[in-house]
Amino acid sequence: MYQLSVLGSSWQSIQHITFNIQNKMYRSHTCGELRITDAGKEVTLAGWVQTVRKFGAITFIDLRDRYGITQLLFGEDLNGQLEANPLGREFVLQAVGKVSERSNKNPNLSTGDVEIAVTSFKILNKSAVPPFTIQDDSDGGDDLRMKYRYLDLRRNAVKKNIELRYAVNRAARNYLHNNGFMDIETPFLIKSTPEGARDFVVPSRMNPGEFYALPQSPQTFKQLLMVSGYDRYYQIVKCFRDEDLRADRQPEFTQIDCEMAFVEQEDILNMFEGMVKAIFKDVKNISYAETVERMTWEEAMWNFGNDKPDIRFGIKIANLKSVFTRNGAITATGELINGADFKVFDEAETVLAIAVPGCSEYSRKQTDELTEWVKRPQVGMRGLVFIKYNTDGTLKSSVDKFYTEDKLKAIAGFANAKPGDLILVLAGTEDRTRKATSDLRMEMAERLGLRKKDEYKLLWVLDFPLFEYDEENNRWVARHHPFTSPKPDHINVMIDNNPVIENAAEYLKHPYAEIKANAYDMVLNGNEIGGGSIRIFQRDLQEKMFTALGMSDEEAVHKFGFLLGAFEYGAPPHGGIAFGFDRLCAILGGSESIRDFIAFPKNNSGRDVMMDSPSTIDDKQLTELQIKTDIRK
Amino acid sequence: MYQLSVLGSSWQSIQHITFNIQNKMYRSHTCGELRITDAGKEVTLAGWVQTVRKFGAITFIDLRDRYGITQLLFGEDLNGQLEANPLGREFVLQAVGKVSERSNKNPNLSTGDVEIAVTSFKILNKSAVPPFTIQDDSDGGDDLRMKYRYLDLRRNAVKKNIELRYAVNRAARNYLHNNGFMDIETPFLIKSTPEGARDFVVPSRMNPGEFYALPQSPQTFKQLLMVSGYDRYYQIVKCFRDEDLRADRQPEFTQIDCEMAFVEQEDILNMFEGMVKAIFKDVKNISYAETVERMTWEEAMWNFGNDKPDIRFGIKIANLKSVFTRNGAITATGELINGADFKVFDEAETVLAIAVPGCSEYSRKQTDELTEWVKRPQVGMRGLVFIKYNTDGTLKSSVDKFYTEDKLKAIAGFANAKPGDLILVLAGTEDRTRKATSDLRMEMAERLGLRKKDEYKLLWVLDFPLFEYDEENNRWVARHHPFTSPKPDHINVMIDNNPVIENAAEYLKHPYAEIKANAYDMVLNGNEIGGGSIRIFQRDLQEKMFTALGMSDEEAVHKFGFLLGAFEYGAPPHGGIAFGFDRLCAILGGSESIRDFIAFPKNNSGRDVMMDSPSTIDDKQLTELQIKTDIRK
Repeated sequence: MYQLSVLGSSWQSIQHITFNIQNKMYRSHTCGELRITDAGKEVTLAGWVQTVRKFGAITFIDLRDRYGITQLLFGEDLNGQLEANPLGREFVLQAVGKVSERSNKNPNLSTGDVEIAVTSFKILNKSAVPPFTIQDDSDGGDDLRMKYRYLDLRRNAVKKNIELRYAVNRAARNYLHNNGFMDIETPFLIKSTPEGARDFVVPSRMNPGEFYALPQSPQTFKQLLMVSGYDRYYQIVKCFRDEDLRADRQPEFTQIDCEMAFVEQEDILNMFEGMVKAIFKDVKNISYAETVERMTWEEAMWNFGNDKPDIRFGIKIANLKSVFTRNGAITATGELINGADFKVFDEAETVLAIAVPGCSEYSRKQTDELTEWVKRPQVGMRGLVFIKYNTDGTLKSSVDKFYTEDKLKAIAGFANAKPGDLILVLAGTEDRTRKATSDLRMEMAERLGLRKKDEYKLLWVLDFPLFEYDEENNRWVARHHPFTSPKPDHINVMIDNNPVIENAAEYLKHPYAEIKANAYDMVLNGNEIGGGSIRIFQRDLQEKMFTALGMSDEEAVHKFGFLLGAFEYGAPPHGGIAFGFDRLCAILGGSESIRDFIAFPKNNSGRDVMMDSPSTIDDKQLTELQIKTDIRK
Repeated sequence: MYQLSVLGSSWQSIQHITFNIQNKMYRSHTCGELRITDAGKEVTLAGWVQTVRKFGAITFIDLRDRYGITQLLFGEDLNGQLEANPLGREFVLQAVGKVSERSNKNPNLSTGDVEIAVTSFKILNKSAVPPFTIQDDSDGGDDLRMKYRYLDLRRNAVKKNIELRYAVNRAARNYLHNNGFMDIETPFLIKSTPEGARDFVVPSRMNPGEFYALPQSPQTFKQLLMVSGYDRYYQIVKCFRDEDLRADRQPEFTQIDCEMAFVEQEDILNMFEGMVKAIFKDVKNISYAETVERMTWEEAMWNFGNDKPDIRFGIKIANLKSVFTRNGAITATGELINGADFKVFDEAETVLAIAVPGCSEYSRKQTDELTEWVKRPQVGMRGLVFIKYNTDGTLKSSVDKFYTEDKLKAIAGFANAKPGDLILVLAGTEDRTRKATSDLRMEMAERLGLRKKDEYKLLWVLDFPLFEYDEENNRWVARHHPFTSPKPDHINVMIDNNPVIENAAEYLKHPYAEIKANAYDMVLNGNEIGGGSIRIFQRDLQEKMFTALGMSDEEAVHKFGFLLGAFEYGAPPHGGIAFGFDRLCAILGGSESIRDFIAFPKNNSGRDVMMDSPSTIDDKQLTELQIKTDIRK
């Protein structure tokens, strides 16, 4: 019997499972298993040659498998045999020998107290010299490691990610099972109903001229399951989106997809913060006892400048002037800063400030560097105003000729600054300035070490707008998706008003602009890890939604007739959530890149460079499918 | 807290899980939960109206949810309200009331001792009259129930299948987890390498003119994971095959897909008979203590006429004459039957007999009916010879004029017949006669009640031929798949011989015809539920295999270069198995049809009639993908 830490030695070991290796012929133990208490045992190990070290006629080999590394000692008697059959890195070796105590123990290895005095061995397979080293700090570049992904996966740095992913998978399943959820598989060959992202499509040979689509999510199916009475559904399921890939996107990705019936928002929030806490506990051994914070979307945007704030630290935004509407009104009029003849502020739509703790003594060089930082194209601001709130209580700013010290003090007070803080002020158009201030806030926190790797802070962001304005088509689009319900109070606003926008310039005054969604996002350390909503379950409201999105009745029935139909036969109130499984794993693994947590990822062109896919297919296949390629030169 | 039987009341309750309903607003309890011990409690239930029964001013309603049915009693005080808001079948109802003891208890319901004296209620949603009744014996035909699948899924008969499927899923995962297997996701957008079945393909917008394929199985990926050192892998995963659909085929289906490294066949057999036994225990509460029987493919074909025999009963085939080769030789020469001037036997390639117990007194009408049965096009024989071995020891046959009673007795003895048996003899060409005898054996067992619903018999079939002969192209094809290893003894036969078949008429004499595969199928009650093999892990052997299958070196590298490459860098010995998850569930659920165990299945034309898919897509989508339809008239 064998004790395995699912997360390997470099992780906090929390899930121990016991199993019998049971491999009768090839090995009696794994390479991570033997201890000093096994000394004297006759064992058989099998694995890969990690290193070969020769000392005269004696050879030491580190043998590696999934479970660890064990040192093999080949004595003089085997030297001839070894010279006839030289072993190289990554050879697959089977060795028989006796467990004995090591003279120079290795405290960094769980097997470091012992070695195997080899009596016989067999090369199970040879290896060419690998194109990069199989070590934590490999000498292989990204492209090379992607091409030889099967070798990259041998590296401990990658293996622990794959193990972490499985641990998260298992923890989520156990929690959901214990809470009465059933894993119910939904189809992958479905109907193309593009809303938002593009579908991948699959030509149907048996129905020529027709296509299946791969699901962007199992959304409508899980809702149908609620209509069918399966009141707690989940799946850990692949989803597909044919989008132009940004750095951290994959054309196929995995969701923890959940839905519940007979629930309100509060039920969902409780259930799924419970799930994330259970994952913390099972995977990271973190007891997240505190209440998960909640914040409306408006509060998040107002105080943090984005809808997924990192709340491991404060540094809230002070809204000196803004056209951002809260509860339908513009509330930051700029009275503190206007009229001082500083045109940048006077003419700006929006002026926002953050007070960065302990940075009042930044040098000219440092503030210049920050100014350059905000002027980079990725941030896109024209400049940066700073106010140093010195520890002696005096104030010094880059706009001293416009503002008196009293005025600066008032601004500092408004920004909740304390002596010692550096106040950074950005001005410009609303959207860009708010985003830039949010970026600057994150950057300063990063520089100050406030984004701690080992600290986890969950947050619910609630009450998103139901609609966004689509300028190009002068119509509404669903911010979350077309199945999200308005807040109960706002249902009548939606039903009673015509969604058509008569005056594009004043779209914000349309009643639909103020409708809030019964939707929620879960945010972890500044990353959206999950999002969901209470769904529409009434046919008339769903039809109104389709109309609001510019769909004709015919189109709505063609695309979603099955769902509208289902709502006629006793659809219960229901709602759900989907977690981005790849991202959740990446964050728990302390990485920014989901690709590191996927066994066989694709590159930014959607290619698998290892298997060289996609690829051309035979003419016979195209003929059978009754399609032709039609390449534009 | 709530005790749930995963398998519902009509199933043996084995998996009890406890969870908190936690739905603050909509219900305090489920409809399967309340007992006499809850009498007096104020509760809120929510669910669907199963039946409405009015007795004057009093109304009884059966309220149904996922967990059961609870009777609601609406007294006279609510009558006016009910008349103003009449309730119909499948309305979604929320009711508040007090649990009280029923006067006429219903022992068939777990909640049958109580009813809810309703004090207030709310209609959460109305329902149109459903197109068929939501009952075990629905009045809806197949097509109607497929169209309204979301209503069909409400029926207990369907729900228990979906619940069973989840229970099998959970049991398999638990077993595999406890044995150190990791669920590692493999990609769905892969490379098209059609071998055998057709691939579904997915046009790549970002790589115009190129296509992904959907996996027929994760075969090559799981082998790469073994090369990467993840020595115990599993997935419960969707697979895709674009085949013309037979009755019990789906274009997308699910496998329990597993692979192990550093194993031989014996390790795999032990591990996975353990898994199936664990599923029996967890899902059906069956302790399968007996040793799982094993049989070579040759024994199965010889004794049962097919490679997945049902061994719940005997009735082995007696091979009176056959050209079937065993260990490379033809062993049934027909000496018992030849030369009696009975041309049918004299001229037949193959003559096979079965002794059916207790049927010696079949009437003329009954034997005629059997003769008609074997003459049906599905069986395709010319006729049937029978020999009655009467209980008094005399024999009477349809071929009395050719064979003496002594001769018949010898034949009966050869067929292991006992007095009281009816011996049925078929003659014709080898393949057809063997299959027909197998079919007849199954038919007779069915008629005699020997295929018992509640009996489960596992069997390993081993040592399949590695190759099959492809007459059309005069070449070999892989019987299992191109990655299956020959038996260790046969590797040299493969390496040392040229696979080209010089003389098509004598292909059976080619050394490759006798090579046996290191492959195994698991058979349950006459159904193949899983199959796998020890894999090739040496590049030269894999290349030889591709050559044997008629692939040029260039083609092999184009399609499988990544795998051949991986075999150069230390591939360990490995092997695996895949279980047909849909079929396994169907058999455990006592059904022949996998469709009943899939939440949203497709029909025999690969269509989802509920969502009407596949369907045409927008020209914009085709243009973006740079493809055109090219329909042949």
